[in-house]
Amino acid sequence: MSTNSFGRLFTVTTWGESHGPALGATVDGCPPNIPLDASMLQVWLDKRKPGQNKYTTQRQEADEVEILSGVFEGKTTGTPIQLMIRNTDQRSKDYGDIMDKFRPGHADITYWQKYGIRDYRGGGRSSARETAARVAAGGVAREVLKSMLPDLKITGYMVQMGPDKIDRNAIDLSQIEQNPFWTPDADAAERWADYLNGLRKSGNSVGAVIEVIASGAPAGLGAPVYGKIDTDIATAMMSINAVKGVEIGAGFGAAELTGEDNADEIFMGQDGPQYSSNHAGGILGGISTGQDLVCRFAVKPTSSILKTRKTITKSGEEAEIITKGRHDPCVGIRAVPVGEAMMACVILDHVLLHRGQIGENQGKIG
Amino acid sequence: MSTNSFGRLFTVTTWGESHGPALGATVDGCPPNIPLDASMLQVWLDKRKPGQNKYTTQRQEADEVEILSGVFEGKTTGTPIQLMIRNTDQRSKDYGDIMDKFRPGHADITYWQKYGIRDYRGGGRSSARETAARVAAGGVAREVLKSMLPDLKITGYMVQMGPDKIDRNAIDLSQIEQNPFWTPDADAAERWADYLNGLRKSGNSVGAVIEVIASGAPAGLGAPVYGKIDTDIATAMMSINAVKGVEIGAGFGAAELTGEDNADEIFMGQDGPQYSSNHAGGILGGISTGQDLVCRFAVKPTSSILKTRKTITKSGEEAEIITKGRHDPCVGIRAVPVGEAMMACVILDHVLLHRGQIGENQGKIG
Amino acid sequence: MSTNSFGRLFTVTTWGESHGPALGATVDGCPPNIPLDASMLQVWLDKRKPGQNKYTTQRQEADEVEILSGVFEGKTTGTPIQLMIRNTDQRSKDYGDIMDKFRPGHADITYWQKYGIRDYRGGGRSSARETAARVAAGGVAREVLKSMLPDLKITGYMVQMGPDKIDRNAIDLSQIEQNPFWTPDADAAERWADYLNGLRKSGNSVGAVIEVIASGAPAGLGAPVYGKIDTDIATAMMSINAVKGVEIGAGFGAAELTGEDNADEIFMGQDGPQYSSNHAGGILGGISTGQDLVCRFAVKPTSSILKTRKTITKSGEEAEIITKGRHDPCVGIRAVPVGEAMMACVILDHVLLHRGQIGENQGKIG
Amino acid sequence: MSTNSFGRLFTVTTWGESHGPALGATVDGCPPNIPLDASMLQVWLDKRKPGQNKYTTQRQEADEVEILSGVFEGKTTGTPIQLMIRNTDQRSKDYGDIMDKFRPGHADITYWQKYGIRDYRGGGRSSARETAARVAAGGVAREVLKSMLPDLKITGYMVQMGPDKIDRNAIDLSQIEQNPFWTPDADAAERWADYLNGLRKSGNSVGAVIEVIASGAPAGLGAPVYGKIDTDIATAMMSINAVKGVEIGAGFGAAELTGEDNADEIFMGQDGPQYSSNHAGGILGGISTGQDLVCRFAVKPTSSILKTRKTITKSGEEAEIITKGRHDPCVGIRAVPVGEAMMACVILDHVLLHRGQIGENQGKIG
Repeated sequence: MSTNSFGRLFTVTTWGESHGPALGATVDGCPPNIPLDASMLQVWLDKRKPGQNKYTTQRQEADEVEILSGVFEGKTTGTPIQLMIRNTDQRSKDYGDIMDKFRPGHADITYWQKYGIRDYRGGGRSSARETAARVAAGGVAREVLKSMLPDLKITGYMVQMGPDKIDRNAIDLSQIEQNPFWTPDADAAERWADYLNGLRKSGNSVGAVIEVIASGAPAGLGAPVYGKIDTDIATAMMSINAVKGVEIGAGFGAAELTGEDNADEIFMGQDGPQYSSNHAGGILGGISTGQDLVCRFAVKPTSSILKTRKTITKSGEEAEIITKGRHDPCVGIRAVPVGEAMMACVILDHVLLHRGQIGENQGKIG
Repeated sequence: MSTNSFGRLFTVTTWGESHGPALGATVDGCPPNIPLDASMLQVWLDKRKPGQNKYTTQRQEADEVEILSGVFEGKTTGTPIQLMIRNTDQRSKDYGDIMDKFRPGHADITYWQKYGIRDYRGGGRSSARETAARVAAGGVAREVLKSMLPDLKITGYMVQMGPDKIDRNAIDLSQIEQNPFWTPDADAAERWADYLNGLRKSGNSVGAVIEVIASGAPAGLGAPVYGKIDTDIATAMMSINAVKGVEIGAGFGAAELTGEDNADEIFMGQDGPQYSSNHAGGILGGISTGQDLVCRFAVKPTSSILKTRKTITKSGEEAEIITKGRHDPCVGIRAVPVGEAMMACVILDHVLLHRGQIGENQGKIG
Repeated sequence: MSTNSFGRLFTVTTWGESHGPALGATVDGCPPNIPLDASMLQVWLDKRKPGQNKYTTQRQEADEVEILSGVFEGKTTGTPIQLMIRNTDQRSKDYGDIMDKFRPGHADITYWQKYGIRDYRGGGRSSARETAARVAAGGVAREVLKSMLPDLKITGYMVQMGPDKIDRNAIDLSQIEQNPFWTPDADAAERWADYLNGLRKSGNSVGAVIEVIASGAPAGLGAPVYGKIDTDIATAMMSINAVKGVEIGAGFGAAELTGEDNADEIFMGQDGPQYSSNHAGGILGGISTGQDLVCRFAVKPTSSILKTRKTITKSGEEAEIITKGRHDPCVGIRAVPVGEAMMACVILDHVLLHRGQIGENQGKIG
Repeated sequence: MSTNSFGRLFTVTTWGESHGPALGATVDGCPPNIPLDASMLQVWLDKRKPGQNKYTTQRQEADEVEILSGVFEGKTTGTPIQLMIRNTDQRSKDYGDIMDKFRPGHADITYWQKYGIRDYRGGGRSSARETAARVAAGGVAREVLKSMLPDLKITGYMVQMGPDKIDRNAIDLSQIEQNPFWTPDADAAERWADYLNGLRKSGNSVGAVIEVIASGAPAGLGAPVYGKIDTDIATAMMSINAVKGVEIGAGFGAAELTGEDNADEIFMGQDGPQYSSNHAGGILGGISTGQDLVCRFAVKPTSSILKTRKTITKSGEEAEIITKGRHDPCVGIRAVPVGEAMMACVILDHVLLHRGQIGENQGKIG
């Protein structure tokens, strides 16, 4: 019942602090005989890695993942897979200011209040560096899913930066890899570049909304009523640093609709049921319909900023703080591969859970 | 690892179908020596009970809860508390249409696809009747919290019906009990009454947004990184029927803010840290700050409507469906006490978890 | 994480006290489309039911099980199955002595020390009546296993009463149903009848050893290293009231053997590997070999006896106690169907877990 | 729900194979502010370390533990503690024989049947090397318990080797550290030295029985009915490699007793209840009494022996096998510190669980 674990049958336990010797993930429940080596995980870590352009923190981390167990002669053995990433860029520096003062909007104060001790260096366990371990574990999930659901495709991208949303009609998924914001709207990418440059120079930051879509997942995934697949997606995304909201399909927009408008009508296609629309985000009653699984999550702006803010010290003195250092002006950018990784973990977990509890005897239609 | 269970130390397992003999909740982990009798739970069930006004389903259920175990001479014993609610209004009627056709927007089709069998009477397990069990279990949590956190107050209310939001400046919590929509904005209640009457008469339905606030919870609750209290609130709310989105504090609005605007500045008050604002919704790094815990969730419109919609049958024939029967035009109304109940369960669970794992040795400030 | 739950994918949560309104089991994770009605469970409850002969408590309980959920039109739906047994023989009587004094060897004192409250009537939650719920849940497991492992056969029997063991060479499984002790050794049954009569008349009780064998389970069940199938069998049996020891295969006898003598040699049979012996009890490295799964557990003598014993009262006064009432002279007798039920639950849980995590791709031999 | 995890609130997940790069334990739920460094764990690992005398495997492993996370400035932070032990003695050798043939009595064949792949080098995950991770994790538990239960003392020792038991009247705990068998009976140590020398020279091995006692644990630990402390001790010990039986207190001996003889009579001592004897092993109804917690477990003889045994190959050919290499003639010796470590983990877990679910409001006596 580790609170640093996620998943039922495919269980990921992350560990490690931002400036400790290493961080990583213990992955249990991975099926055996899946080809796996570190390079298959490294590709996703490289996508998330900081310091790749001026819009992410300039901290230089190699983020090289090592597989310490659970793989033999290039294949998984069904035993726990230990993934370790050494922290290499542990600058010896003066943390004095952060050591005593709590950054507004940051976990500094609550970690102190809860634990009475905190590794203040880089945020310790509350640092977004923890998500590197998620991305590595998500890479394992993807390799397993390759063999189980060959048509599955998980795609994350940014749909909003600050108040500026993409044009839904301009979505071109091939654009995602062409800009530093992982956005499918090329025009938005240009606007955001200017906007974020300005924020960065002024030492400010901004929030974002990320959308993650999974196509090719079968109908029947999800275990009502507390293991619904939408519930688990919400759990997965809300657990990511700085996330303040999650929605499925039409999401908060569904609240504005009538039942007549919201209901996705059903037709009979060649390969099974088809729907007139996807307000449901591919999930009804907590179980997947076979449509695209669609979720969005809101990432708040980075709390470590160069702007002066009022705060207090550990001893209760009022003070001001300005956070120097190498921080992301829009931490939402690096949340894209993290959201994808979490989606991969959720789907694999439910594929295994369905196979275990239900087997293959689903209801056929037609 | 029941997928019908919720909570780590205060564990609620719900069971039962809409039209079976009974439904209920098995509540384990309730501390001993807490005064408890059925009447303390009944008050919350009565709040949720259908058929109380024309805006909720006319199904008449007594929803009387019985305590079958775990209480001795009026006090909890620390052993599992079994809460049972008999289903009394099981009309013998012709379900022929629903038996074969899948209602668009409803779990009919996915339950069939997953399980190959479904109790189509009233939605079976996917019915919102399951939430009666949550409300009963939440009542137990509230009685425990009374002794542990005497200042805790959990308040749920509707802040949006369809596209019409309340006026945040007009919030008057004393209004909540004065209207059938549990809204703190008296004007909104009047507008919504008209609006919903129209929808109801036309056989349509509409979505809503519910807000739940908990004041008086201490700092330090929440267990990073996959047992964060915001993550658990998201899990709790997203698992409620028809919920499509959850947000904490500023939520999706936080995505629009700069770091400077979003950061809640910290001051030193008489009883500890005070904040200039509460964009964080009372949670930083997954741990409570001591401010109000604030969440909102979006409820989609009821999918069972009197409007004709296109669908298919179990045998794959295209068809049309119109759902007769007694349905809620705005199921969000009855979600208010459910959201409160889930919040109570989450808070109690984290109070117990904190006490177990951390004890009392929190970091003091000042 | 209910501590009243057992199992990973097939999860049984028992609830209820000896003299409360009812007791039962919430069974989650049961696969759908399994034929099930109460009569299929009743047969096992009848086997366990007290008052059937003079060697078990004369308490008269109908022990009629009701299915309150999870079954529709005679088949499981994949949703939680609630099994309820009403307590009918709740004699209104004077519990004064037990209310204040702690019975030596009984959970009276520890429940008081742990909880500060206890339902002293019949032992409350610590009563062996809890095992009725296990037997009912085990009946569900058996029905599922019928379709998944048609050759599986689970057989429990008594192999020792007090110091008197059966003759291993005289085992005749057809005898088990022919005597009140569920023993396969007819001679032992006769000896024990005399012995137990004497004990019963003198108000004393005695311990026993039960053996449970499962034949027809496939190789490959068990999830190292903390979900080994032998570990789970030990967990299952040790959780039964009054059990003080569990062993697998040669068990404690294995400690006396050399490696040469203990190693079950392997041969190639027509249907796969065969073994020269079964010291391993069908389990190597926590995984089943395909041989018979063999376990034994020791049941201590009933602690409620008519003999005078020294004890103390709640207020700490020294006292003497003699427990009147209707108690089993050898509670081990009724543990036989309980052990069988637990074995069924463990096997089903591991069948589902293996299917979920591993699928069908086991290593073939030959 | 990792099957490589143990514990509810103090959760230990072990990982790693015998001849992979490393093995270790992810320890979550450790309370914060506990002084901890690697040297505190190393002392226990050194006790377990192989190659210390001629009675344990001559494999030379440094077994040096590194703490990779969860400790800051010499104190635990409440976040996961990653313990890593590098495998240093990975001889490059010819595993040809073991690669294709299954050792009788070993997990070779079942790992193959379950997973269809196995790391045959040194037994891979099924190797007793996994217990090094348990010992390290147990060391963490001990440090926490030092501050929570300063009077707690956990002592493990060997009470039987092969058929030869110690003289219970000759027990002198100070002898335990004086002989290579961790036995409190000096005479037995001498007999066993001769006996084991003979076995070792002939390439044979033998089983053993280990007893672990914990004194100083308070009354009230244990969570009925599936989280009983005796159940969890059984789970803990049975999960250790080669263990085939576990018993509590009088254990299997209790089966031979009458109720009159088995009942530990209760008296009132200065500090609370005292008992005339401890057949219960300090546990009634699954809850600790405050007496010594007493368990024993049986360890089968090492299956890797120099004696020729019949077996089969992966392709199903009949064959003979003789296992060369560096193996323990009595693997029970090294199980002593492992049993102690598991006991420490169980006790800490229950201390935390009790504190979380019950708090301090236990029933007082007198």
